[in-house]
Amino acid sequence: MNSLSEVAEVIKKARRPLISGHVMPDGDSLGSILALGLGLQTLGQEVTMVSSDPVPDLYTFLPGAEQIVVGKVPPGNYDLFIALDCSVIDRLGKYVESVLNSEITTLVIDHHVNDNPFGHYNYVEPKSAATGQIVMDLLDLINIEIDNKLAINLYTAIVTDTGSFRYENTTPEVHVKASRLIDLGIPVSKLSNLIFGEQPVESIRLLQVALQSLEISKCGQIAWLSITQEQVQSVGAEDQHVDGLINYPRKIKGVEVAIVFKELNDGMVKVSLRSKYQVDVNLLAKKFGGGGHVRASGCTLKGGLDQAKKLVLTETQNLFRGC
Amino acid sequence: MNSLSEVAEVIKKARRPLISGHVMPDGDSLGSILALGLGLQTLGQEVTMVSSDPVPDLYTFLPGAEQIVVGKVPPGNYDLFIALDCSVIDRLGKYVESVLNSEITTLVIDHHVNDNPFGHYNYVEPKSAATGQIVMDLLDLINIEIDNKLAINLYTAIVTDTGSFRYENTTPEVHVKASRLIDLGIPVSKLSNLIFGEQPVESIRLLQVALQSLEISKCGQIAWLSITQEQVQSVGAEDQHVDGLINYPRKIKGVEVAIVFKELNDGMVKVSLRSKYQVDVNLLAKKFGGGGHVRASGCTLKGGLDQAKKLVLTETQNLFRGC
Repeated sequence: MNSLSEVAEVIKKARRPLISGHVMPDGDSLGSILALGLGLQTLGQEVTMVSSDPVPDLYTFLPGAEQIVVGKVPPGNYDLFIALDCSVIDRLGKYVESVLNSEITTLVIDHHVNDNPFGHYNYVEPKSAATGQIVMDLLDLINIEIDNKLAINLYTAIVTDTGSFRYENTTPEVHVKASRLIDLGIPVSKLSNLIFGEQPVESIRLLQVALQSLEISKCGQIAWLSITQEQVQSVGAEDQHVDGLINYPRKIKGVEVAIVFKELNDGMVKVSLRSKYQVDVNLLAKKFGGGGHVRASGCTLKGGLDQAKKLVLTETQNLFRGC
Repeated sequence: MNSLSEVAEVIKKARRPLISGHVMPDGDSLGSILALGLGLQTLGQEVTMVSSDPVPDLYTFLPGAEQIVVGKVPPGNYDLFIALDCSVIDRLGKYVESVLNSEITTLVIDHHVNDNPFGHYNYVEPKSAATGQIVMDLLDLINIEIDNKLAINLYTAIVTDTGSFRYENTTPEVHVKASRLIDLGIPVSKLSNLIFGEQPVESIRLLQVALQSLEISKCGQIAWLSITQEQVQSVGAEDQHVDGLINYPRKIKGVEVAIVFKELNDGMVKVSLRSKYQVDVNLLAKKFGGGGHVRASGCTLKGGLDQAKKLVLTETQNLFRGC
């Protein structure tokens, strides 16, 4: 593992960096890419920002979002590959992953627990609430001024990964950073409306369908939703609309572990896990080859929905007495 | 208007202060009362905390909440009356209001706009996001140490009145204060869950049922839910669980007017109306003998659900072109 100063030195020397986040990009992934990417542009670097998956509609307001190249990575004489919010090669997605076949120097900056990140240089700090929080320190170290565009991207990264300053990862430092970003003039209330206030009709239609599958364990501590591909398609929804669904089983009083089982196109099932106070869902996800954080994690299982539910629910119930 | 230092001096000299917030107490009102009340107790003052209205279930977790006397103000030789988050006599509620007939010295601390607060001493600062924010400065001025109990009350005051740091009133100073309170060891995630996160399972079950009735006008600007008594009863829900439902049609992108039609026991239909930016739903509700605010109103109609929907939707559609 490297220090943030070492990472800053590597980045400073780059001329043509290629920057990527993870598949199914979220606010932290995109905000981090854009804050660092736009920041390095002010130093005169020829920055290329890429994403294997499209930018969700929700985040197209982010300053610079139109610069992110989606899908195939354009050919270029890149001298540094920077992975943000992603320390596992698989999570780069098929388009970006292919870049790693070349002899390019790779640098990983992430806040997800991972003892074995894939970069030549690695800075992984699980104590950070968001990768955007690390990027903000990095910009200071590189001496890049945080202007309004960078501030909006950094704020979005932090506010989304802390659930609007509600999650356990909301440290005093997170609030100090938010304070500084607001001081730079970002429109808090407008951003909150954009990020949390409105939802496309597909999301509500999907919620309508998904809630039909709500199940709660006898003990009331585990609640889950199961969503089929057919259901997603029947309401014209896309993967991006599935993200917020886990909040519904999660917010039921008395529920400790919330789960969403989502059937993917290829017969796989994506499992999202959340816990409130006690259960380490990172450990739980690891049992199925996944991972993440203590309170938020995920994994992907082969076989149909029924099999995935059986396996994961059995393992989850084992964590509770008589559940 | 007095300075905060002057107010601090008045409070320091008190021996038997009586502290109240406003009717229908919220997180800021209660958190402010308790932070100041418990704080003054550490100085040896004989503090009496009162509220005309009961403490909502949601806020019974606040440290010291059990000390708040609800209803009639107990007789006592009070030497100072402190009104928090309330600068209008009416808002004290009938029980507390009666205290003002005596010759007690009154002191008002508030953040609601009011050029004519009722106290002998007044500190009203609309730039503060919450009265709790002012109380926190006041505790520092009086030199009262902010312990964990005080911190939880202050944090609750601030987080509720800023909508979890999302509203326009969320200044850099608000985040600096939140940072300090978290540094004092408050359990952020647990508090967030208590305040925003959890819902009784009946609410989610009702949402499940209610969303089945979601309809959207052709133009996409009007969305509504219709709920029968049978549906409410089938999931074991009560009227209090219906309250949040209007947020679902409301948060659909492109929707300007959201409506919930709810069948009442006596063959009446309660109609709740919300608008986002343009439509005056107060005027709309008035056409049916109701009223409220420009963006939130309601009315009650005779006849069944179908008739109420027909009447209200026709009138609403008339406000839009080709809707």
